[in-house]
Amino acid sequence: MTTHKLLLLPGDGIGPEVMGEVRRAIDWMNAQGLTSFEVEEGLVGGAAYDAHGQSISEDDMARAMAADAVLFGAVGGPKWDDVPYDVRPEAGLLRLRKDMELFANLRPAICFGALAEASSLKKELVDGLDILIVRELTGGVYFGEPKEITDLPNGQKRAVDTQVYETYEIERIAAVAFDLARTRDNRVCSMEKRNVMKSGVLWNEVVTEVHKRDYQDVELSHMLADAGGMQLVRAPKQFDVIVTDNLFGDMLSDVAAMLTGSLGMLPSASLGAPDGNGKRRSLYEPVHGSAPDIAGQGIANPIAMLSSLAMCLRYSFTMGDVADRLERAITTVLDQGLRTGDIMQDGMTKVSTEQMGDAVVKAM
Amino acid sequence: MTTHKLLLLPGDGIGPEVMGEVRRAIDWMNAQGLTSFEVEEGLVGGAAYDAHGQSISEDDMARAMAADAVLFGAVGGPKWDDVPYDVRPEAGLLRLRKDMELFANLRPAICFGALAEASSLKKELVDGLDILIVRELTGGVYFGEPKEITDLPNGQKRAVDTQVYETYEIERIAAVAFDLARTRDNRVCSMEKRNVMKSGVLWNEVVTEVHKRDYQDVELSHMLADAGGMQLVRAPKQFDVIVTDNLFGDMLSDVAAMLTGSLGMLPSASLGAPDGNGKRRSLYEPVHGSAPDIAGQGIANPIAMLSSLAMCLRYSFTMGDVADRLERAITTVLDQGLRTGDIMQDGMTKVSTEQMGDAVVKAM
Ligand SMILES: CC(C)[C@H](C(=O)O)[C@@H](O)C(=O)O
Ligand SMILES: CC(C)[C@H](C(=O)O)[C@@H](O)C(=O)O
Repeated sequence: MTTHKLLLLPGDGIGPEVMGEVRRAIDWMNAQGLTSFEVEEGLVGGAAYDAHGQSISEDDMARAMAADAVLFGAVGGPKWDDVPYDVRPEAGLLRLRKDMELFANLRPAICFGALAEASSLKKELVDGLDILIVRELTGGVYFGEPKEITDLPNGQKRAVDTQVYETYEIERIAAVAFDLARTRDNRVCSMEKRNVMKSGVLWNEVVTEVHKRDYQDVELSHMLADAGGMQLVRAPKQFDVIVTDNLFGDMLSDVAAMLTGSLGMLPSASLGAPDGNGKRRSLYEPVHGSAPDIAGQGIANPIAMLSSLAMCLRYSFTMGDVADRLERAITTVLDQGLRTGDIMQDGMTKVSTEQMGDAVVKAM
Repeated sequence: MTTHKLLLLPGDGIGPEVMGEVRRAIDWMNAQGLTSFEVEEGLVGGAAYDAHGQSISEDDMARAMAADAVLFGAVGGPKWDDVPYDVRPEAGLLRLRKDMELFANLRPAICFGALAEASSLKKELVDGLDILIVRELTGGVYFGEPKEITDLPNGQKRAVDTQVYETYEIERIAAVAFDLARTRDNRVCSMEKRNVMKSGVLWNEVVTEVHKRDYQDVELSHMLADAGGMQLVRAPKQFDVIVTDNLFGDMLSDVAAMLTGSLGMLPSASLGAPDGNGKRRSLYEPVHGSAPDIAGQGIANPIAMLSSLAMCLRYSFTMGDVADRLERAITTVLDQGLRTGDIMQDGMTKVSTEQMGDAVVKAM
């Protein structure tokens, strides 16, 4: 079996706790001979800043670039609210995305049957929900220049951010969305605000062209992003794949994640373009954040992080069978009634991060 | 009684139908001597484009600038999907906002008791909900320059939009939010993405300063806009006043509106700065759009448009008593079980646009 190199970047808050369970799952899979991972660990976010004043070191960046896949926990917290902008915790994550050219962010919004009651939406609206949001991740207002605050002669300040998209950036993310749609319900809904933004006009045009050129078998629709947000709340099951830009993707995928009632359960994958050998750079992270309020108590839900490992097995190593096994183990454990605090329900058994991780490994 | 000049701009789709009911309500109030409105009507959006190739004529712009208040229906529809960008229906609305300097957009997200069941959220999460979203309306990515699509030497295109905020723009919208909070539950939550956007950094700084300088009695909190979207879906009642920028305000207010289950019921006000006499330019419009799919059938819900008239009475003419009367009439009619198609429920009486308008006027 080929040995693969994994870099784990636990980050801040509950990051290290949930990553601990991933490490145990990997150890177990290695011991079983299911996988042959060589695992390294690095610092990112506030943890990296505390250690050496950067949100990620050049060393760890180099290791990320060389790894076969990166697993990322979460970054940020009030402790670092006042550090300089360029070394704030999020800068480490943004640099990873940019330097690794991870332009395609896949965010499944799935409602786990066992948790449908936990959604703030009526059960029938979310039960069985399975949307995939494909978010552009290396362009738009996140990285466009100028991005600055300047002093005006009148003593006031002026802040500027720039949303930029070029044709090729939209083409490649559209292709990812259409390809994924073909493995699902074959429908893509593209969201932008072409009625207000020129980047929305270009987005709409390019997605339409890519569809016409290469994906006429896939059903394509367009929606304004604000209407899209509404429709997600009103009737989320109408969607299959949603493709959208970096900022709208940030907002819409968070809304979608929250309405599943399964936020602590949702993984994400960030992928680069395939190289000559079909290999893509990749990073996997839970959708939830660093949750500083519950960090260090051993009560965080490790499932989103474990599901991120499952996505990693599937997308980076075509180990779909091991991924299935891990995902089935998660479902089994939920069906057994085990719950961390965030998803606790009447009549269920409340467990710690470690107990949940243990149970998943056992169920595998 | 002073005579006030109102300009009605019904626009496209269901705009003219719902505006028809406002006209009847005004006629009745005038006849009763409750008000003394002089009413003019103009064209905006696709209707204006069809008439003279502009999304609003110079003439109608001049009338809007001279009016004591503007009532606006809705614009847009597939018919005008392919008109040039500069004369698309939305351009008329954006020009009104910009030229009238309507920087403060007030969007109440209220759940009408009679309609709590209609929400996609669980009833207990939205029953009694009363949030006010204060959205900056003349800045940000909507109006910043450059805003263009250029051809690149390689045959591709490059689209740019620019988000710009200056200190004074944030100061004045923050002040509006704090002032309004004092008339409510005295809490303001400011939303931006300071972890990614420089405009978010400045937004956060300025709101914090305005609070410290003039509004220490109001409770201020900050939330990242993506987390804000999540929290709106998870537990909307935690909010009182939300203040945010133009684009986040667009997204967040639509999500908030949809989760009340009362989208066809929600009005909005767009206000300018008070002049020497305390008078502000103002425009009132329903939160819902032009709904081209149901236009012309006489089935649209006129309540959001009628509530917009109530907001107009309250904010532009300090006729709070007449506004109360109109709003009570709306509640009465709902309690009587009258429903247009969009809010129809088992056991209620389905009525047309006109019947609903009639009933509201009668109930006054
Ligand atoms: C942490 C932050 C920079 C990030 C983003 O805005 O992209 C996060 O919200 C996300 O969605 O991954
Ligand atoms: C019609 C459109 C330009 C407008 C906006 O984006 O502001 C609308 O969505 C709104 O929220 O008033």
